[in-house]
Amino acid sequence: MGWEINASEIDTPLGFQASGIHSGIKESDLDLALIFSETPSIGAALFTENSFKAAPVQISQKHLSQNNGVVRAIIVNSGNANACTGETGLTTALRMTEIGAQLLNISREQVLVCSTGVIGVPLPLDPIVTNSNYLKQQLSPSGFGNAAQAILTTDTSRKLCSALSNLKGKQIKIFGITKGAGMIHPQMATTLAFIVTDVAITQNLLYKALNEACRLSYNSISVDGDTSTNDTLAVIANGASNSPVINDEGADYSSFLEGLIQVCQSLAHQVTRDGEGAGKFLTIKVVGASSETNATKIARKVSNSLLVKTAIAGEDANWGRILMAIGNSGVSFNNHGVSIFIGDIQVCRNGEGLPFDERKAKMILKKNEIDVTIQFNDGNASAYFWTCDLTKKYVDINAYYRT
Amino acid sequence: MGWEINASEIDTPLGFQASGIHSGIKESDLDLALIFSETPSIGAALFTENSFKAAPVQISQKHLSQNNGVVRAIIVNSGNANACTGETGLTTALRMTEIGAQLLNISREQVLVCSTGVIGVPLPLDPIVTNSNYLKQQLSPSGFGNAAQAILTTDTSRKLCSALSNLKGKQIKIFGITKGAGMIHPQMATTLAFIVTDVAITQNLLYKALNEACRLSYNSISVDGDTSTNDTLAVIANGASNSPVINDEGADYSSFLEGLIQVCQSLAHQVTRDGEGAGKFLTIKVVGASSETNATKIARKVSNSLLVKTAIAGEDANWGRILMAIGNSGVSFNNHGVSIFIGDIQVCRNGEGLPFDERKAKMILKKNEIDVTIQFNDGNASAYFWTCDLTKKYVDINAYYRT
Repeated sequence: MGWEINASEIDTPLGFQASGIHSGIKESDLDLALIFSETPSIGAALFTENSFKAAPVQISQKHLSQNNGVVRAIIVNSGNANACTGETGLTTALRMTEIGAQLLNISREQVLVCSTGVIGVPLPLDPIVTNSNYLKQQLSPSGFGNAAQAILTTDTSRKLCSALSNLKGKQIKIFGITKGAGMIHPQMATTLAFIVTDVAITQNLLYKALNEACRLSYNSISVDGDTSTNDTLAVIANGASNSPVINDEGADYSSFLEGLIQVCQSLAHQVTRDGEGAGKFLTIKVVGASSETNATKIARKVSNSLLVKTAIAGEDANWGRILMAIGNSGVSFNNHGVSIFIGDIQVCRNGEGLPFDERKAKMILKKNEIDVTIQFNDGNASAYFWTCDLTKKYVDINAYYRT
Repeated sequence: MGWEINASEIDTPLGFQASGIHSGIKESDLDLALIFSETPSIGAALFTENSFKAAPVQISQKHLSQNNGVVRAIIVNSGNANACTGETGLTTALRMTEIGAQLLNISREQVLVCSTGVIGVPLPLDPIVTNSNYLKQQLSPSGFGNAAQAILTTDTSRKLCSALSNLKGKQIKIFGITKGAGMIHPQMATTLAFIVTDVAITQNLLYKALNEACRLSYNSISVDGDTSTNDTLAVIANGASNSPVINDEGADYSSFLEGLIQVCQSLAHQVTRDGEGAGKFLTIKVVGASSETNATKIARKVSNSLLVKTAIAGEDANWGRILMAIGNSGVSFNNHGVSIFIGDIQVCRNGEGLPFDERKAKMILKKNEIDVTIQFNDGNASAYFWTCDLTKKYVDINAYYRT
């Protein structure tokens, strides 16, 4: 049973509504979103590993420890991260969950809260209070489009993914929205991502699936190597599809996991493609490594090298920098067994340069999507990592925009 | 007994000569240098920790294991790193030491060899062979100026430092040259640096002093977080000052160490100031940390954050990014005890933002030299780190120059 994936259409699971409005935290763009499951639902979430956790992260973690797994709603603002804002910030984040709870007639602990934007500036509560009824009125299944818009910061476009499949004769769906576009680095769930599904599943298995999907998606992308204070990846499952409950790691679980991975990868790739200033989407594939951990370490080091990322921006087949980054990974490997391919052109064999057609390499590097394969002869392990090039536009955005 | 430090004048120790010429490895700039101690001398050197070590690094390491500490000369080329060049590369590096040895009538093992430039392209030996006699003819104490010029790659200017002091009535000197300007990250000796001194010291103590000086200078700077395949920091001591031999860790050793640290710091700071595209020189000072290791970890993480470095480029007092980077350091600390100062303006206290005069902060950030102090209340340990801002020029240089 496969999944039909669509990264442009909004096709939401049964029983979910969302809205996105302009409240006034930002000057003119949409800046406040609400996601709601009409029927009882459970939730799971992964958060930033940055030791400065923003107030909304702290409140969401607290609620998850108090709500017995029941998560019915997520309230999110952009334009202000409510991070490093002290006790006041915690009160504000808590108030946001109370506002959401009152609107939806559920308990506060069943509401998660997220914020994204500038760090260290108090988040004004007034715009949220003033516009809360409007936020509720706008709730609808198609409201996920505005919600996707309302969570963006430096992103150039909204990011969403719909997935459709069948389970024991019932149609099941997974739908997600996400935002980038800086401070993107794989440590736990990076950036904000909200996923809803109408499958029925136990909370334990939902967490297990979320961890695995996160590892292969959000934890395998990098824009700039920095981890934000607010990263959250949350999923809500309400069972509204009436498909049988997934309560063991059998075929149904595997099928759901496959769909969740595909949705998370689609969303994570959209984040990477829209990385601040990014012109090119780069897939780093490591094969033949001694372990998956080592393969990931190497892929990550190459993905984060400024010299590799700028070479890609310059469409320069400068494989020496790739080799340099591999050598800095801290992984032990057979140096004489390293091959590097840019697209299908081999540029390095046995750790040494090969003569290659620079013109053909240039044609590959002129494309927007570039594959780099690094081959070792140390074992059978492999890993993927996704990153983007580093352009002058990244510097422009980050020198003059206060995130 | 203090040291007189001068980073612009060439004042070389007794008994040393150098030369720098154009051999044709580069199109028109100086590209070949020779450093020579006329009298018997010992040497010590630290090399890159990148697991792909360039051929000259491998040959120099081999010679150091064979020469009983006697190092008389260093031959260096720029324009080609002779890295990832296989057996041919090793032969070329070895030949370079043989050429040097023949010219100077010393044994091959007493010659170290270094290369810097593009990776993975065979280094032509012909220009070196053809011009070797000229290289020798140009040797003179004042030739260090041309040598300093001949080792540069993307550097915008030559980098040198003279240090003068007295030891038991004898004038003693330390002199060094270095080059940057990308792939600069602290893991062992970063970039190329060559230091000569006329003190007399045992090889053990020379290594000990070099390690300590390196830790506090080259291992405490960062331009782009990448470690090259060719990094070498070498020192030669010939005792020509006739000062007493330093053979224990007493006052004379301390005095020499102090001078060596000052020379290494001056050179390392010059590398950082001239970091590719750098407009600003940033000193990150961590105080009140639980250990020096932790203080260094934090200072390093902040120094390498693209978001911090771009904020500095934009002259933006975006301390939230500094806090974010601190939180990503992997160090445990009291989050509520963190203060941040930009220059003398406190922008964060107890892990929370403080109202501050943005206009005054802008004035500090408009300068070319900026101090950031991060204060913890976890202990008494401190560390310094030096870095530069990240500008569009860095991207320009690295997207279109093949290093």
